[in-house]
Amino acid sequence: MIIIGELINGTRKRIKQAIADRDDGYVSGLAVRQAEAGAAFIDCNPGTVGDQEIEDIRWLVQTVQAVTDLPISFDTPNVAALRAAFDVYEGAATPMINSITAEQERIDAMLEFVAQSGANIVALALSDAGMPSGCEDRVAAAVGLVDTLTGAGIDAGRIFVDPVIAPLGTDAGTGRAVMGAVTQLRAQRPGIHITCGLSNISYGLPERKLLNRTFMTLCIGAGMDSAIIDPLDEQMMATVYAAEALAGCDEWCMNYITASRQNRLGV
Amino acid sequence: MIIIGELINGTRKRIKQAIADRDDGYVSGLAVRQAEAGAAFIDCNPGTVGDQEIEDIRWLVQTVQAVTDLPISFDTPNVAALRAAFDVYEGAATPMINSITAEQERIDAMLEFVAQSGANIVALALSDAGMPSGCEDRVAAAVGLVDTLTGAGIDAGRIFVDPVIAPLGTDAGTGRAVMGAVTQLRAQRPGIHITCGLSNISYGLPERKLLNRTFMTLCIGAGMDSAIIDPLDEQMMATVYAAEALAGCDEWCMNYITASRQNRLGV
Repeated sequence: MIIIGELINGTRKRIKQAIADRDDGYVSGLAVRQAEAGAAFIDCNPGTVGDQEIEDIRWLVQTVQAVTDLPISFDTPNVAALRAAFDVYEGAATPMINSITAEQERIDAMLEFVAQSGANIVALALSDAGMPSGCEDRVAAAVGLVDTLTGAGIDAGRIFVDPVIAPLGTDAGTGRAVMGAVTQLRAQRPGIHITCGLSNISYGLPERKLLNRTFMTLCIGAGMDSAIIDPLDEQMMATVYAAEALAGCDEWCMNYITASRQNRLGV
Repeated sequence: MIIIGELINGTRKRIKQAIADRDDGYVSGLAVRQAEAGAAFIDCNPGTVGDQEIEDIRWLVQTVQAVTDLPISFDTPNVAALRAAFDVYEGAATPMINSITAEQERIDAMLEFVAQSGANIVALALSDAGMPSGCEDRVAAAVGLVDTLTGAGIDAGRIFVDPVIAPLGTDAGTGRAVMGAVTQLRAQRPGIHITCGLSNISYGLPERKLLNRTFMTLCIGAGMDSAIIDPLDEQMMATVYAAEALAGCDEWCMNYITASRQNRLGV
């Protein structure tokens, strides 16, 4: 499971403040803790716009890469901000761009830059037809976008499709639709990764963490191999280890048993 | 989710003692607590043989039905013990027989009795070829047995197929094989129920309850609608509520929200 640690996000109040204050201790602490908890990428979302966003993402990238060798996920569709992020990025590992969609305007603005960057790319199953509501429109939007990206020379293995998670509370079919889309995408475009910004599923419902980790299990069962989550949620991470062992993604259960020995499961 | 409460089982040391001592307070307490926790059937396994088994199952049925209106699952392949259980059973709800297999000797001994009883029947995907090892042999054994049972006049809706759970620790493919078998059985014989004796999956591995509830989620995702489990495991039951909501088996998430209001999820 390729975990994209979601915590450094300027749309969250505490992070917004830390970015505004240039509180590098707080931000770098979050980067280190997510890395230790098992993240493979550290997402950085400035949560601002325009020139401020450019300044902020530059500072975030410098602050995070000072304390971890993990690749960074640059979380903005703003090409000027992406350029600034790449300019200061010094990591050896290939970073992520989060995200592109199948909307024509976004393709026009981003595709060439994404292809030339050599980065991994989160590809949202979101087209000019609007938010997907079922399984089939998710698959259609995602397959079209994957083919556009590979047509521009981007390796399938660099593409992380996000089937777009709507809240279960407003559409009780969304869980089943996403699971079906993951199953079909895994079959139709086997070379890609499948990820998702997962926590939206539980918006407006009680016991959100229970729903989030249970949905993670269902998505792993359907073939998802990445997720944009809070890796400091210990019950979530324990569930990931268990689900991967059960779904046959953890040979001899070695990761599960190792996690148990490190006391990461008894939570 | 049709929960078959597994706790009254004479192969467990404490229950064996309670049965030997005719400790009706202990056994009836377990029946009441499982009913309150959401069980739909109370399994009764005497854990003995011969004449002793007949005496013991008679006492178990009388003890349990004195405190709950839930139907009982008579857990024995011994037709003489089953006759004794039916003789004393006074419940209005249709009981369960746990279990029959596709082994010819077992079919010969039990089929006529099961058909005439009118009871529900747990049907293990276990044939004369021995323990199933993959997906296809589970499906073959189960479909053959389902067709034998329906051929004898038993309604598909009374059949609870158990795909037979082997320990993940000795066969890392067992989780994926069971999930595949559940998916195929749900498609090939849509009228049946699918259940399983679930806890065997985690035998020999650490943090068994974490594995058990995570496997429950994966099986619900694949189409399982029943399980033979400990309903007093609060985290298991919370996971069942969440998984059913996410898998689209709980319209408007009403069961999930109700469980939350009853403080059954925050565990």
